[in-house]
Amino acid sequence: MDPEAVKKSLTETTVDAFALQSPCFFDTLVNDGLRIDLVEPGRVLCSYAVPPRLSGPGNYLHGGVVATLVDVVGSSAFLSAGLRTTGVSLDINVSYLDVAFIGEEIEIDAKVLRAGKTVGVVSVEVRKKGSGKLIAQGRHSKYLAVSSKL
Amino acid sequence: MDPEAVKKSLTETTVDAFALQSPCFFDTLVNDGLRIDLVEPGRVLCSYAVPPRLSGPGNYLHGGVVATLVDVVGSSAFLSAGLRTTGVSLDINVSYLDVAFIGEEIEIDAKVLRAGKTVGVVSVEVRKKGSGKLIAQGRHSKYLAVSSKL
Amino acid sequence: MDPEAVKKSLTETTVDAFALQSPCFFDTLVNDGLRIDLVEPGRVLCSYAVPPRLSGPGNYLHGGVVATLVDVVGSSAFLSAGLRTTGVSLDINVSYLDVAFIGEEIEIDAKVLRAGKTVGVVSVEVRKKGSGKLIAQGRHSKYLAVSSKL
Amino acid sequence: MDPEAVKKSLTETTVDAFALQSPCFFDTLVNDGLRIDLVEPGRVLCSYAVPPRLSGPGNYLHGGVVATLVDVVGSSAFLSAGLRTTGVSLDINVSYLDVAFIGEEIEIDAKVLRAGKTVGVVSVEVRKKGSGKLIAQGRHSKYLAVSSKL
Repeated sequence: MDPEAVKKSLTETTVDAFALQSPCFFDTLVNDGLRIDLVEPGRVLCSYAVPPRLSGPGNYLHGGVVATLVDVVGSSAFLSAGLRTTGVSLDINVSYLDVAFIGEEIEIDAKVLRAGKTVGVVSVEVRKKGSGKLIAQGRHSKYLAVSSKL
Repeated sequence: MDPEAVKKSLTETTVDAFALQSPCFFDTLVNDGLRIDLVEPGRVLCSYAVPPRLSGPGNYLHGGVVATLVDVVGSSAFLSAGLRTTGVSLDINVSYLDVAFIGEEIEIDAKVLRAGKTVGVVSVEVRKKGSGKLIAQGRHSKYLAVSSKL
Repeated sequence: MDPEAVKKSLTETTVDAFALQSPCFFDTLVNDGLRIDLVEPGRVLCSYAVPPRLSGPGNYLHGGVVATLVDVVGSSAFLSAGLRTTGVSLDINVSYLDVAFIGEEIEIDAKVLRAGKTVGVVSVEVRKKGSGKLIAQGRHSKYLAVSSKL
Repeated sequence: MDPEAVKKSLTETTVDAFALQSPCFFDTLVNDGLRIDLVEPGRVLCSYAVPPRLSGPGNYLHGGVVATLVDVVGSSAFLSAGLRTTGVSLDINVSYLDVAFIGEEIEIDAKVLRAGKTVGVVSVEVRKKGSGKLIAQGRHSKYLAVSSKL
């Protein structure tokens, strides 16, 4: 397990990451402000108050951002399981169960279900922080043998 | 069918939409530059060259953006089917089949599979524009009776 | 909560249910022998040794049966949550994580994530009974207002 | 492409395949009677009248059978694409769009979206035969390098 790799993957930003042309702009946009509350082997738990920049038209967390959190926080959980790569996405699915309004504290809890030599799967829950009420549950499958051909 | 509603949902931006605090910042971020190539009843076809701001770490279109395109272009297809609402997301799934590098021309093709009174489903393909090679295939289920309780 | 309704939905068979023409043949085929180990509000836990009749070509539990267990045990969990209907399926997804050979003891654990007026979602895990090792994780969305139009 | 391999995978039955203890009982149960209407490279189209044995409680095709058809007909499409294996299931998802009553003619249309060295994806539609109306749309991801470790 490598907590530093998790931290680096989720929080490292360069001085101009918020410039639209920065190569890590989109990741920074979604991750900026994310607190890493817990890193265990195969599990990463993060939280933040939903930032206004990630709102959809209804003034709550955009569904595309929820899917992106399943992607990026889910990916970081493979690092917590000791892998040196977060691989390449094969499949993402998300069930939307409730909304999270701007400013609400949410937590993102990613648990590795399988980390094989070639394919890994992680389950991700997005919850309201106080009540634990589910906002979304998703799964993310990744191809982990990235040096060879998919 | 209402092509104007489709156009409005995908391309309307205000002067400061790119300000991080704008309520439509995230939609604008993903949609800005999108050309609407075709609107038929139950189908919307869009295209653009992958903008640098939507890159992931590998210099290709971020997986979270692909999921967001399945969300937003898929939603607009319900408007093309004559619905007055794009509803609320129930479920999104995406299979990632290839990558799209920054600058590559891609098209996003959304087709309504079902538009019932309560629940609708749309299928969305993301393809390379010249070859038609698939980048991703996804589905998006929505709750359409938004005035009543989910 | 109605444990009797759960029991009835999963175990009731008629004398000739194993006749190919019986209207509940397929459910009986998959469910026969299933033990209901726990019923709580919103949760049903079942188990059995994988019966030879549910084998796929590789001598392990058929992937189609795993999806059917996500369907039927997942549906019964809505009864445990006090609903009078198990609704109509909207969406099922399953990630396959390991195989279960004929004769292996497995458990199927279904938890309701959301039971709204119209739409419900249940998460289902299939595990090896001793070790708890995951065989599959799935989700099942249902339309619950079955008297009105989908 | 090998049409014979497709045919063999979907229709070969032994004299006692309908015996509950037969190793191919479940496949035979779902596939028996299936007509192979078309085999092209990467595509298999089948049809049959929904047999009574595959009914769910509502007198229409069981949702678990639809998922199994996405599994088995989808798998056969990899053989039509020239692969020598149908691989091991990674992920199956199905959206249910309409019901198919007992006796209704349905067709199952499987198209390979990707057949890489390691991972393949197939899209499967289940439709009413006359009208082409969709009953379900699903996707099935498979691990194709079965001799090596998942």
